[in-house]
Amino acid sequence: MSKTANPASVAPLTREEIVRSLVTGERRFHEIPKTLPAEEAAEIRRQALAEMTSTPLANIGHHSLDVQRASHRNCENFIGVAQIPMGVVGPLRVRGKHADGDFWVPLATTEAALVASTNRGCTALREAGGAVVRIEDVGMTRAPVFRTSGIVQTQAFLQWIQDHEEEIRDLAEGTSRYLKLLEVRPYTFGTTVFLRFRFDTGDAMGMNMATIACDRVVNELIEPATGVPCIGLSGNYCVDKKPAAINWQEGRGKRIYAEILLDAPILHHILKTDARSLVEVQYRKNLLGSIAAGSMGYNAHYANVLAAFFIATGQDPAHVVEGSMGITCIESRGPDSVFASIFMPDVPLGAVGGGTSLDTQREALAMLGVSPDPERRGEAVTRLAEILGAVVLAGELSLMAAFTSNDLARAHEKLGRGEIPNRLPT
Amino acid sequence: MSKTANPASVAPLTREEIVRSLVTGERRFHEIPKTLPAEEAAEIRRQALAEMTSTPLANIGHHSLDVQRASHRNCENFIGVAQIPMGVVGPLRVRGKHADGDFWVPLATTEAALVASTNRGCTALREAGGAVVRIEDVGMTRAPVFRTSGIVQTQAFLQWIQDHEEEIRDLAEGTSRYLKLLEVRPYTFGTTVFLRFRFDTGDAMGMNMATIACDRVVNELIEPATGVPCIGLSGNYCVDKKPAAINWQEGRGKRIYAEILLDAPILHHILKTDARSLVEVQYRKNLLGSIAAGSMGYNAHYANVLAAFFIATGQDPAHVVEGSMGITCIESRGPDSVFASIFMPDVPLGAVGGGTSLDTQREALAMLGVSPDPERRGEAVTRLAEILGAVVLAGELSLMAAFTSNDLARAHEKLGRGEIPNRLPT
Amino acid sequence: MSKTANPASVAPLTREEIVRSLVTGERRFHEIPKTLPAEEAAEIRRQALAEMTSTPLANIGHHSLDVQRASHRNCENFIGVAQIPMGVVGPLRVRGKHADGDFWVPLATTEAALVASTNRGCTALREAGGAVVRIEDVGMTRAPVFRTSGIVQTQAFLQWIQDHEEEIRDLAEGTSRYLKLLEVRPYTFGTTVFLRFRFDTGDAMGMNMATIACDRVVNELIEPATGVPCIGLSGNYCVDKKPAAINWQEGRGKRIYAEILLDAPILHHILKTDARSLVEVQYRKNLLGSIAAGSMGYNAHYANVLAAFFIATGQDPAHVVEGSMGITCIESRGPDSVFASIFMPDVPLGAVGGGTSLDTQREALAMLGVSPDPERRGEAVTRLAEILGAVVLAGELSLMAAFTSNDLARAHEKLGRGEIPNRLPT
Amino acid sequence: MSKTANPASVAPLTREEIVRSLVTGERRFHEIPKTLPAEEAAEIRRQALAEMTSTPLANIGHHSLDVQRASHRNCENFIGVAQIPMGVVGPLRVRGKHADGDFWVPLATTEAALVASTNRGCTALREAGGAVVRIEDVGMTRAPVFRTSGIVQTQAFLQWIQDHEEEIRDLAEGTSRYLKLLEVRPYTFGTTVFLRFRFDTGDAMGMNMATIACDRVVNELIEPATGVPCIGLSGNYCVDKKPAAINWQEGRGKRIYAEILLDAPILHHILKTDARSLVEVQYRKNLLGSIAAGSMGYNAHYANVLAAFFIATGQDPAHVVEGSMGITCIESRGPDSVFASIFMPDVPLGAVGGGTSLDTQREALAMLGVSPDPERRGEAVTRLAEILGAVVLAGELSLMAAFTSNDLARAHEKLGRGEIPNRLPT
Repeated sequence: MSKTANPASVAPLTREEIVRSLVTGERRFHEIPKTLPAEEAAEIRRQALAEMTSTPLANIGHHSLDVQRASHRNCENFIGVAQIPMGVVGPLRVRGKHADGDFWVPLATTEAALVASTNRGCTALREAGGAVVRIEDVGMTRAPVFRTSGIVQTQAFLQWIQDHEEEIRDLAEGTSRYLKLLEVRPYTFGTTVFLRFRFDTGDAMGMNMATIACDRVVNELIEPATGVPCIGLSGNYCVDKKPAAINWQEGRGKRIYAEILLDAPILHHILKTDARSLVEVQYRKNLLGSIAAGSMGYNAHYANVLAAFFIATGQDPAHVVEGSMGITCIESRGPDSVFASIFMPDVPLGAVGGGTSLDTQREALAMLGVSPDPERRGEAVTRLAEILGAVVLAGELSLMAAFTSNDLARAHEKLGRGEIPNRLPT
Repeated sequence: MSKTANPASVAPLTREEIVRSLVTGERRFHEIPKTLPAEEAAEIRRQALAEMTSTPLANIGHHSLDVQRASHRNCENFIGVAQIPMGVVGPLRVRGKHADGDFWVPLATTEAALVASTNRGCTALREAGGAVVRIEDVGMTRAPVFRTSGIVQTQAFLQWIQDHEEEIRDLAEGTSRYLKLLEVRPYTFGTTVFLRFRFDTGDAMGMNMATIACDRVVNELIEPATGVPCIGLSGNYCVDKKPAAINWQEGRGKRIYAEILLDAPILHHILKTDARSLVEVQYRKNLLGSIAAGSMGYNAHYANVLAAFFIATGQDPAHVVEGSMGITCIESRGPDSVFASIFMPDVPLGAVGGGTSLDTQREALAMLGVSPDPERRGEAVTRLAEILGAVVLAGELSLMAAFTSNDLARAHEKLGRGEIPNRLPT
Repeated sequence: MSKTANPASVAPLTREEIVRSLVTGERRFHEIPKTLPAEEAAEIRRQALAEMTSTPLANIGHHSLDVQRASHRNCENFIGVAQIPMGVVGPLRVRGKHADGDFWVPLATTEAALVASTNRGCTALREAGGAVVRIEDVGMTRAPVFRTSGIVQTQAFLQWIQDHEEEIRDLAEGTSRYLKLLEVRPYTFGTTVFLRFRFDTGDAMGMNMATIACDRVVNELIEPATGVPCIGLSGNYCVDKKPAAINWQEGRGKRIYAEILLDAPILHHILKTDARSLVEVQYRKNLLGSIAAGSMGYNAHYANVLAAFFIATGQDPAHVVEGSMGITCIESRGPDSVFASIFMPDVPLGAVGGGTSLDTQREALAMLGVSPDPERRGEAVTRLAEILGAVVLAGELSLMAAFTSNDLARAHEKLGRGEIPNRLPT
Repeated sequence: MSKTANPASVAPLTREEIVRSLVTGERRFHEIPKTLPAEEAAEIRRQALAEMTSTPLANIGHHSLDVQRASHRNCENFIGVAQIPMGVVGPLRVRGKHADGDFWVPLATTEAALVASTNRGCTALREAGGAVVRIEDVGMTRAPVFRTSGIVQTQAFLQWIQDHEEEIRDLAEGTSRYLKLLEVRPYTFGTTVFLRFRFDTGDAMGMNMATIACDRVVNELIEPATGVPCIGLSGNYCVDKKPAAINWQEGRGKRIYAEILLDAPILHHILKTDARSLVEVQYRKNLLGSIAAGSMGYNAHYANVLAAFFIATGQDPAHVVEGSMGITCIESRGPDSVFASIFMPDVPLGAVGGGTSLDTQREALAMLGVSPDPERRGEAVTRLAEILGAVVLAGELSLMAAFTSNDLARAHEKLGRGEIPNRLPT
C-alpha cells in the first residue's frame, strides 16, 4: 500500500521518517517535501548522510547562510557549506577609473604564503604610487552551433543573419533590460556554423543572461525562419571555462591591464630583489618557459590570486580557467628600475548575481565598496575588475621576486665563499 | 617615545589599542602580536576592517575552523571564511580499483543547477551499472630553469645530470619519506635549460614537496657542482596552474579515464535524449567547436564539476585550470546506445595536506571514505581520483543531454506544428 | 696598387679573371660586374662553384628561364634552377564561382604516389558531379609593432589611430592602385602595441604591397604624428609563414571551402572504401589524432597537395606553413554515402607577381586558364583558389580512403581466415 | 568494335593516336602504354595538354632530368618540371661536428632579396668565427591508431605491447637494414589508442621506411595477436607535415641548435644595427608578437630559408610546415654585443631517397659535400642538418637586423630634424 494512497499519510512525515526513507534509498535527496523549510531539509540530509557515511557533518552544517536563498539560487541538495579561510591584504593602492584609492582586499585560499606574499606585493605597489589599471569591457559570449547542408546553405544562412541583425538584437535585448547585443561573429566550415553572440551585461557576469537571450533568438527567430537546426545552444566557440585562442584574441568578460614602475629602493628593500634578476626570471620563466611548455599562461601565477579573489567575492571559480590566461611583462627602465605589467584578456566578472549575493561574499564586496547602482551601469563591476588587476599584479611581483631572491641569497652566499666556479666547458 | 622603549608598554596592549593602531595604519595586519590567540587576532582584524571599510563582517566571522591551524597552514592575515554552499549528489556508482561501490559526493558551488544536473548524471551512471574508472599516477612536477653559456655547455650540463642521476635521486628523496623521483626531463634551447623533475608524492598533491626537493637538489648539488646558475626554481615548464601542451602530452598529477555504456531506455527516460542527438552534439560542440575555438578543453564543462569537487574536498581551486583540459568522447553503439568517456590528462589531487585538513573539507573527504593509510601508499588519493572521474562523467553526460533535449523539445513542438520547413537553399 | 687605380684595368676583366677572383675569395658572388649579361654572370658563378666544390653544375645550369628577369626579381646570386618534377591530374571538376568546369592541374612534387593518388581523388570528384568550392577573400595582413610608455599612452595611441583612419587609408592606398585597406586591428599589452593592417590586394598575393604600404603609413604618418616608435614593420602578429591562432580565427589570404557528396558506388569502385570506414578514420585520425597531438592541422595531408600546387604555379612555398592549417570533415549521409569537406582558413595566393611570372610557372597557370584581367579584379586569383580547394579535397579523399582500404584489405583477408579473434579482455 | 579486339590494333598506336585518345578523354593520362619510353610518354602528355588547354608547354618540357627515374620514383603522369631559380650564399662558416668549415649553400627561391639578405647573414657569421651548430637525431615517427572497447582493453593492449617490445622491434627492423626502432610511445583516451613508433633511419628522412615498418608490425603481429583493429596506419599523432605540440615537445627528424656571438663592429658594419635594437625587435616581435598571435613559430622567418634549402637539396617541401616551428633568442652580452641562437625542434631531413637523387638536387648536395657513406651511418645527414642550422641562423639575423636598421635609419633621420617629439600622453 503506497503512502500516497493512504489517507493516514496526509499527516506530514516526521523528520525521522524522512531520514529513514533517504537512508533506505526509498527517497532521493531532492525529494524532500518542498513544504519543509530549506534549513530543515538541509538538516535532514545531513542526518541521513551522517548515518549512511558514518560521518558527522557538524562543520559543514555550521554556517550563517540564508539557506532558503542559497538552496534555490546557488546549490541544490543543500547540506551546508565549505568554509574557505579568508585573509586580507592591503592597503592596495589602485589608480583606476572607478577604483582610485586604497583598498583592503579579501582573499579566500587554503594555500599557505599566498596572502602573505601578495601582501608584500601590495606594499611595493603602494610605495610606488599605486598600480595604474585600465579595463576593457569586452562582454559575455555564447555561441550556438547549427547544422547546414553545406557551404551554399551556410552562406545563405549567414546572409540571413546579417540581414536580420536588427530583429535579432531587438529580440535578444527584450529578454533583459540589462543586456545589449554587441556583435554576432560567425565561424563556419563543412556543415557546421557557430554564431558567437557577444553581449554587454552591465554589472552582471552575464553567462545566464546571454544563454537565455540566445535561446530566445534561436528558438523564436533563427530556427523557425531559416529551418537551419541548432544542435546545441553552446557550441564551445563561446568558449566558457576553457582555455582558448578565440578568447585570447577576441577577449571575453573584462580585459584587464595593470602596471607599475618600481625603482631600486622598492626592489631592494621591499621585494628583496634587483632589476636585472627580475627581468631575467621574467624572460626565462614567463616567456621562454611558457613557450617551451606550449602554455597559454605567460605569467607566474595569475590563477592563484584569481581563485582566491573569485572565491572571496562570489565569482564562479571555474572561470579561473579562462581568467588565468595572460602575459606578464617586466622591462628594464634605466639601470636599476623596472616597468612591470600584467594583461588578462578574458576575465568573466560580476558585481551582482551568482555567488555575489551570498552572505560572506556580500561582505567581501562591501569591503571593496562594490555596490551596483542602476544609474551607473557597469561601474561597480569595473571597479571590481580594477582592484582585481592591481592585486594580481601585486601577487605576480612578489612571487617573481621570491624566485630571484632565493637565487640571489644563495648566489651571494656562495659567491662569498668562492663556491661557484664554473666547472663545465663554456 | 616609542612604545617598545617605554617600560609601561610592557603591559600588553588592549584589544582596542591594537584595533586603533591598525586603523591608523601605524600597524600592519600581519603585525598583530604573536602572543595573542589566533582567534582573537582574527577578531581584531575584523573589527578594524569593519571600521575602516564601514562593513560589518559578521558572516565572514561565523565559522567553525580551527583558526590556529588555518591561519598558520592555510591563510595569513586570517579574518574568517568564505562560506561556499555545499550540496550532495549520488549515489554515484563507481567501478574503480580503489573506489568500487556507491558514493555520496559533496559539491561546493554557487552555480544554480550544477548539483541537480550532475545528480541526474549519477542516476544514469547508476542505472547503467556504474562508471568504469582507471587512474594513472603520473606524478607531480617542478621544473627549475638554468642559464648556460650556449649549446656546448648545455650538452655538458645535461650529460652531468644524466651521470649524477643516482646522487640527485638520493638527495631529492632525502627531503621527504613520501617522495620518489621518477624522471628528470630536460628541454633546452639558446642559453636556457629546463629540468622537469617528476615525483611520486603518495597521497599528497605534492607541489610543495616537489619544490622543496628541487630546491635542495639545485642548491646543494647541481649549482655548486656545475656552476650553472638556476634562474628560478619554477621555470614554467612544470607547468603549474596553466593550460599547457606539456601537461597534455606528459600528464601531471593523475590521468583519469572514466567511461560508461548507456542504452536507449537510460538515454530516453533519465537523460531525456537519444543516441543520435547526443553523438551529434558531442561532434559539433566538443570536437568541432573546441577545434574552431583553439581550445584545450574538448569537453562540455569539466571545469564546473572539478571546481565544485575541489572546493568541497580541500583541493587547490587554482588547479582547476590544468584539470579542466581533456576530451569527452560519445560514440554510437548499435542503433540506440552510446559509449561515453571522459579523459583528464592533468589533475593534481591530494588526500592529505593543503586544504584537506580543514574542518569542513575533512568531513567531505570522510563522506567519501578517503583516509590515507601509510601502509597503503597512494590508495586514498587514487580512490578520490576515481570518484572524481565518475562524477565528472556524470556532470558531462547530463549537460550534454540537456543541450540535445532542449533542442529536441523545441524541434518536436515545432515539427508538430509544421513550423520548420527549410527555407534556405540547400 | 689597386685595380681600380690602374688605367690598364679599364680593360674589362676576362671571364677567367672573374672566376679566379671568385675562387680566391677576392671577389664575392654578388660583386660580378653589373655590365655582364645576367646569363653570363650565372655561368661564371657556376664555373667558380664547380671548381671550389669540385661539383659540375651541368643540370642546375640547364634551364629555360629568362635569367635577366629571374635574377632581378626572384633570386640573387643566380646560378641556375632546381628542377622539380611536374605531373598532371585531372580532369578535376570544379563547381566554383569563377572556376566552373573541368581542369587539368599541374603538381610539382618529388613524392612518389602523390600525383597518382590525387588523380584518383579527381576521378571520384568528377563522378560525383564536381566539388562545390567557395572562396572568401580575407586579404593580406602586416602588423607593425610599436612601443609605448604604458596603457595610458597606448589608449591615446589607439584613439589616434581610430581618429585618423581616413588619413591612414588614403596614404596606404596611395602606394599602389591594386591595394585597398580593409581594417586596422590592434592588440596590446604592457608597453607593446600591434596594428594588424589587412588589405585587399586584388590578384596579387600582396605581402610586398602590404609591407610597402605599412612602411609608408608608419614612417610618414603614425610615427611623426604620435611620437610612438615602431620597433619592427612586422611584429609577428601578421603573422606570415607561421602556424598561428590569429590566422585561424581571422583568416589570411583566401579562406577556402570545398565539399562533395560521395555515394556508395563511388566509394566502392573508385576509392575502394566504404562510408563507415571513411567516417571512422576521419574521426580517429583527423579529429582525435590531431587533438591528441596538439596540432593545428585537422586533416590528412593538405600540406602535400598545397606544396605541389604552390611550386607548380609560382606561389611562395613557405606559405605552405600557414596554408596547411584546416579541418577536413567526413560525415555519414544515409546508410552508405558520405559528405566530405575541406576548410582552409589561411591560404596566401597570387595570380600575378612573385614566382608567377617565371616561365614554367606561367605555363602552369595558363593550363588552368588563370590570367588576371584588370577589368575583373581578383577573379583570376579566386579561380586559382577554387581549383586549389578542389584538388586539395581530391588529395584528401584519396589518402583517407587508402588508409581504410589497406585496413579493409587486411581485415577481409584475415577475417576470411578467421585470424582476428579478439584476444584481449573487453 | 573495341581496339583491343581488333587484330589490326596489335600494331602499336602512333604517337598521334595516343594524343588523340587523351584529348577525347577515351584514355586517361596514366594509361599511356607502359612500353613507351618515359620521355616519350611525357611528350605525348604535353602535346595533349597543349592542345586541350591551348597552352604550349615548352618551358615545362625543358629539363635535364632522368625521366625514367623521376617518373617512377617521384612523380606520376610526368609532364616536365617546374624550374625554381637557384642562387648561392656563402661562404657560410659552420662549426659543427660533421660540418666544420666554409660552405657555399644553394637556395632555390622565387622571393626577391632572400638570397641577398641571407648572404649578408653569412658574412656576419663568418666574421664572427662561424656558427656553432649541434644536432640531435630524434628519429622519424609514425603513429597508427587503434580502436579498443574501452579503458580495460586499452590497458591490456598497452601491456601486451610492452611485453612484446622485443618481437615488435625484430619485425620492424627486419623491413630495412637502415632502420632501428627507438621507442613506442602510446597515447590513449576513450576507445582510441595511438602508438607513436620512433625510428632511427640513418641518412634517410625515413617517412616511407617508418610507414612500411609500421605496416608490417601492425599487420603481421599486433592485429593478429591482439585482435585490436588498426583504423589507420597514420593516426595524426605522428604527426607528419602539421604544426603540433607533440613534435615541439618530443622532436621529430632532427633537432637543430645553432648560435653565434656578435660584437659591436659586426653588428654595426655588416648588419647595420646595434645590440639594443636587435634585442628589442627580438623581444617585441619574435617573443611577444608570436605569443600574441598564438603562433608556434617564435622566429622571424625560418620557413623562408628552410623552403629554399629544402627545394634546392631535394627535401620534401611540405616538411617546411613542421620545420618552421622554433625559437630564436637574441640576448645582450656586455654593453654592445649579442648572443643569438636558433632552435628547430622538428626538421625531417634526408641525404638519400626522395628528391635527393634528382639531377639538380644531387648537384646541390654535392656542392655541400653531402654524400652518404654506409660506413658512417647518419653522418651525411647530420652534416646537412648542421649546414642548414647555420644558414637559418644567417637568414634570421639578417632579416631581424633589417627591421631594426629601417627603424634606425628613419629614427636617426627624423631625430636629426627634431621630428619625433612624443605627442601623446605618457
